Amino acid sequence: MTSSKIYGHHYLVELLGCDPSRIQQVSTVEHVFLEAARISGATIVEHFFKQYEPEGVTGIILISESHFAIHTWPEDGFVALDIFTCGTMDSQAAIDFLKQEFGAQDVRQRLVERHG
Amino acid sequence: MTSSKIYGHHYLVELLGCDPSRIQQVSTVEHVFLEAARISGATIVEHFFKQYEPEGVTGIILISESHFAIHTWPEDGFVALDIFTCGTMDSQAAIDFLKQEFGAQDVRQRLVERHG
Repeated sequence: MTSSKIYGHHYLVELLGCDPSRIQQVSTVEHVFLEAARISGATIVEHFFKQYEPEGVTGIILISESHFAIHTWPEDGFVALDIFTCGTMDSQAAIDFLKQEFGAQDVRQRLVERHG
Repeated sequence: MTSSKIYGHHYLVELLGCDPSRIQQVSTVEHVFLEAARISGATIVEHFFKQYEPEGVTGIILISESHFAIHTWPEDGFVALDIFTCGTMDSQAAIDFLKQEFGAQDVRQRLVERHG
């Protein structure tokens, strides 16, 4: 019934000690996150972002290769990030760019194979 | 700088041996996936789905509590599913419903805590 075929590589990333001012507003996060997707080489299909009050952002980018997702907690300088790719992309370049742009002091990342 | 605060619970789920006819088209997958989100008690903010040719679907649901994501491979009866929740939701009810609706013969699921 099933095989061990790998369908996607899923990076689960936490950015710690981020600059709160960089992750508070959609205007900033949307710009940076879309640029990260472009840097990875992903093909962006659609995206949307939601502003939480008083602060915090959720964003999703649907890419041809699967998806990017981000959730931010500015009050704690915390970002949870997902990059799920079924294609050839440089996910690490996107992660490195996001770490730099959000001023993260530390990064925790796990790579999970999504397989049958 | 960091704490062990848990920001979200992330279910990574693979549905194996699904009925291909149930996961081929946006029309079917969108209806079922939105119903799964409702069953979990999530508050749906926005959603979109993309049809791949000749078959296969990607779908994202942005919820107040974080997000749902789905990618299907009808040719293999395979579905990769994510439920990321920062609130009180019955994610297991959603997973059980999707297993039933897609006719999955087996489910593999992992729960990852997204923490600081």
